[in-house]
Amino acid sequence: MSKERLIYLPLGGAGEIGMNAYVYGYGAPGKERLILVDLGVTFPDMDGSPGVDLIFPDITWLAERRDRLEAIFITHAHEDHIGALAHLYDRLGAPVYARPFTAHLARAKMSERGQPEKAVITAGPWPESIEAGPFKVGFVPISHSIPESSGMVIDTPLGRLVHSADFKMDTGPVVGEAFDEDLWASLAEPGVLALTCDSTNVFSPHAGRSESSLAPAIEELIAGAKGMFVATTFASNVARVKTLAEAAERAGRTICLMGRAMRRMIEASVETGVLTAFPRTISPEEARDVPREKLMLIVTGSQGERRAASAQLAQGKYNGIVLKPGDTFLFSSKTIPGNERGVIRIMNQMSEKGVDLVDDDSGRYHVSGHANRPDLERLHQLVSPKLVVPMHGEHRHLREHVKVAQAGGFKGVLAPNGTMLAVTKDGADVVEYVETGRVYLDGRVQVGALDGVVRDRIRMALNGHILVNVIIDENGEPLGEPWCEVMGLAETGTSRAPLVDVLEEDLGQFMGRAGDKTLADDDKLEQGLRKIARQTAMTEIGKRPEVTVIISRLTG
Amino acid sequence: MSKERLIYLPLGGAGEIGMNAYVYGYGAPGKERLILVDLGVTFPDMDGSPGVDLIFPDITWLAERRDRLEAIFITHAHEDHIGALAHLYDRLGAPVYARPFTAHLARAKMSERGQPEKAVITAGPWPESIEAGPFKVGFVPISHSIPESSGMVIDTPLGRLVHSADFKMDTGPVVGEAFDEDLWASLAEPGVLALTCDSTNVFSPHAGRSESSLAPAIEELIAGAKGMFVATTFASNVARVKTLAEAAERAGRTICLMGRAMRRMIEASVETGVLTAFPRTISPEEARDVPREKLMLIVTGSQGERRAASAQLAQGKYNGIVLKPGDTFLFSSKTIPGNERGVIRIMNQMSEKGVDLVDDDSGRYHVSGHANRPDLERLHQLVSPKLVVPMHGEHRHLREHVKVAQAGGFKGVLAPNGTMLAVTKDGADVVEYVETGRVYLDGRVQVGALDGVVRDRIRMALNGHILVNVIIDENGEPLGEPWCEVMGLAETGTSRAPLVDVLEEDLGQFMGRAGDKTLADDDKLEQGLRKIARQTAMTEIGKRPEVTVIISRLTG
Repeated sequence: MSKERLIYLPLGGAGEIGMNAYVYGYGAPGKERLILVDLGVTFPDMDGSPGVDLIFPDITWLAERRDRLEAIFITHAHEDHIGALAHLYDRLGAPVYARPFTAHLARAKMSERGQPEKAVITAGPWPESIEAGPFKVGFVPISHSIPESSGMVIDTPLGRLVHSADFKMDTGPVVGEAFDEDLWASLAEPGVLALTCDSTNVFSPHAGRSESSLAPAIEELIAGAKGMFVATTFASNVARVKTLAEAAERAGRTICLMGRAMRRMIEASVETGVLTAFPRTISPEEARDVPREKLMLIVTGSQGERRAASAQLAQGKYNGIVLKPGDTFLFSSKTIPGNERGVIRIMNQMSEKGVDLVDDDSGRYHVSGHANRPDLERLHQLVSPKLVVPMHGEHRHLREHVKVAQAGGFKGVLAPNGTMLAVTKDGADVVEYVETGRVYLDGRVQVGALDGVVRDRIRMALNGHILVNVIIDENGEPLGEPWCEVMGLAETGTSRAPLVDVLEEDLGQFMGRAGDKTLADDDKLEQGLRKIARQTAMTEIGKRPEVTVIISRLTG
Repeated sequence: MSKERLIYLPLGGAGEIGMNAYVYGYGAPGKERLILVDLGVTFPDMDGSPGVDLIFPDITWLAERRDRLEAIFITHAHEDHIGALAHLYDRLGAPVYARPFTAHLARAKMSERGQPEKAVITAGPWPESIEAGPFKVGFVPISHSIPESSGMVIDTPLGRLVHSADFKMDTGPVVGEAFDEDLWASLAEPGVLALTCDSTNVFSPHAGRSESSLAPAIEELIAGAKGMFVATTFASNVARVKTLAEAAERAGRTICLMGRAMRRMIEASVETGVLTAFPRTISPEEARDVPREKLMLIVTGSQGERRAASAQLAQGKYNGIVLKPGDTFLFSSKTIPGNERGVIRIMNQMSEKGVDLVDDDSGRYHVSGHANRPDLERLHQLVSPKLVVPMHGEHRHLREHVKVAQAGGFKGVLAPNGTMLAVTKDGADVVEYVETGRVYLDGRVQVGALDGVVRDRIRMALNGHILVNVIIDENGEPLGEPWCEVMGLAETGTSRAPLVDVLEEDLGQFMGRAGDKTLADDDKLEQGLRKIARQTAMTEIGKRPEVTVIISRLTG
């Protein structure tokens, strides 16, 4: 019916920092050949997703068009870019391209979940490129807080797109490739239709600092420490782990890596050749025999995660090692907004143990992996696109990034999750809104965020739960009195009698009053019992609990 | 058996920022006459206290000694200092002293909860003082982020104590008394045994800024705004509300206060004479007729509270007013750690409405109400105590504050909640550890934090809830099959049959296998059913839910 178009559709990541999943397509409307850039997770919290294990983007739109999906490209190995791949792969089934370090980790994840490792294909850096339907796609090295991050060049019949992926402009990244301004400027040569661009730090007004700038302060801190020194950072920040380890080595300390993710990440870096020189490490068992003033632990759990090494050490013991007064604990990390409660909890637990805490308040022991506003402006200039499409941000970040682009003389378009853009020679049109959302991994099952499962859990957590059980005999008459159990509610209320007794009394009276019609009708009976239970709870304890009614009908 | 001693015992506030409650006593051990300084709340969160309304300190120790309690002193009207008074008053029953503005609000709270308003006695400022058993207690004006804050001079037979209360050293507080260095220095003249001192901002290295320093930036921002201007701050920060209102007035805007707390706080300020000049305000109904570029709303909800004006405006409509593109929303406030998720949520909702957001990232539109490290050091010097006792902080704040005191040449002692100190002529000894904790206000009922009620709610939220119902007939035989209901769990799992069906099947088989002994024993039967339900859930959906079993026994 019509000519080809070039589309862009974020299914995740443009509306939150997390669960990145960006679709590009080219072809006749409704028949575009598609590629997917990244397939990440985001993490649950007690407020919105209690009990959930992981959160995925809802990829229904793409799964329904899997016959048109040419390939999946993973820009780097952070969980918010790679974490959903193995979980959702069986619904997509296209070849997965990534650079060696990322591919190594992707294969491990695929294998763990029984997905085909060989679907993951190792790609070389730009100017190498991969043909995927109408696209030619290349991995352009860019600096970030994990090795081998890459932006994507996506050449299409209409022209070139550039996808920045997560990045900073670091010319001294300690591990991995430095930001190469000439390389990035060269991408602009044929002209760039659109730059899809990281928005994480758009509100940070100062130019970003280099990973390599941290070494002197970290070295000074470790050199001056008396007892055991423990540092935490993101396990995937291999450069930081290296800086910490080297500073410790120079201070005459032996290094022990703790936490599965920490060891796995360093192993992957060494195996794939990303990390060449790393100080000798010892096992936790060996660490127990090292005098504490000669010991350096580098551990997982910078975000206060309950099961990670930091939290375990804060609570008592991990791998046989105990924190003592005079030890130092360094958070070489930033607390991600929303994780403050957990981080503060372990900080106070450590304080109670007499441990000296050092965090990033001073700005001396951590730098961000994302480009700040001046660096974003610089990338816009280097790539010189017709259009800037902000991604990797909450709505407020995307919106601000559009303003920044416009202030720099570029067109900018706000395209949150589900917004399908048709990119044109000189801008973009919104052509469709696609339903997007979240899927929870809950235990082993995937449930839709709107399915009500988690909503019910939140309700039980806020309101408590009353269970009511009545038996109706063969003649349609109540058999005995209603029985109640309560969970998550005060045992006694206003009348000072046990809440369960008051409930059973009131429910019993209701059953006594109830006519045959009500007793014969499950819905009516349930409704009546629920209403009474809630009224009684309100009177007694001032709460309106969830009520589950079980009606057992005896049959002759 | 022994001579008099002077004791200090924090029941709350020394281990968290919130629920302040500090006991001082003088007399023979076990017979000390007591006073209480402050009786505040802290606020619940989904992580640790879902569904809870307020959190109080556990005052059991003090309530059991109420015959020895001479008086309660409230330093200022922030909820973390006054909020529990009316809720716990009937367990204490001593006269309550406060300065006029605080007393005004305290009476309103007492009255709301059916407690005697006349228990609240208005006190004048130092050098006036109140005799309370062996103590002479005076309210010493000090600057903070609410009118009429006061530190306490507590003169005892052993010597003088000074309780800083919450404070900053503000010589231009906009509303209320400026910090009077001479006055505070004069307290030192007879010698001070101990200074109990605010620790909130001990980690902030720079001298604090004055409330009055904000006016130019706020004025510039409001003057430059195009659409409606909305600002939020703590309702109790009357000075900030005044600065915002005056800047709006000068920009030709009419002011509307929104949110019950906001209106109530300004009314109380005017009624008690704390606030003399305040621009004319209009009602929300009148505001609807004002052109939006001429309108300024000052609203509650700076912490993202779900029911406050900010959140309602972010979601849609409040008092008939709707946010539109081009409006500006100013957070003239700091997000309290732990509240980030709520604040970020409303920021993004506003961003989606096209509202320009301004927060405190720049440091231009908010100053803290607490003394930073240099100001703490200055207060130590002015009061020149034998001993500094840090309070009003988490453990890490208290610990750091001890270090700051020691670095300044003062003795410092770490006394978290429950630590009873005997203050001596030249220091303090820990003489006892008293059990302390938290009490939840849940609906209308108070429940202990360790009673298990909230723990059960958290478990239901994390794990979901399975209800199992079995009927045992007159002969001790199962009557029909077990019945299940689930709440907060996926409907189907591995076997693709409804979870409830699989559960009922497995539980039915268990009942069939169960011997008479098991069927006759409620505990055994319940245990068995619970085990099967959990096993099945683990196999089907990979979760280990809470299980409630109801066994109904028919009697002939």
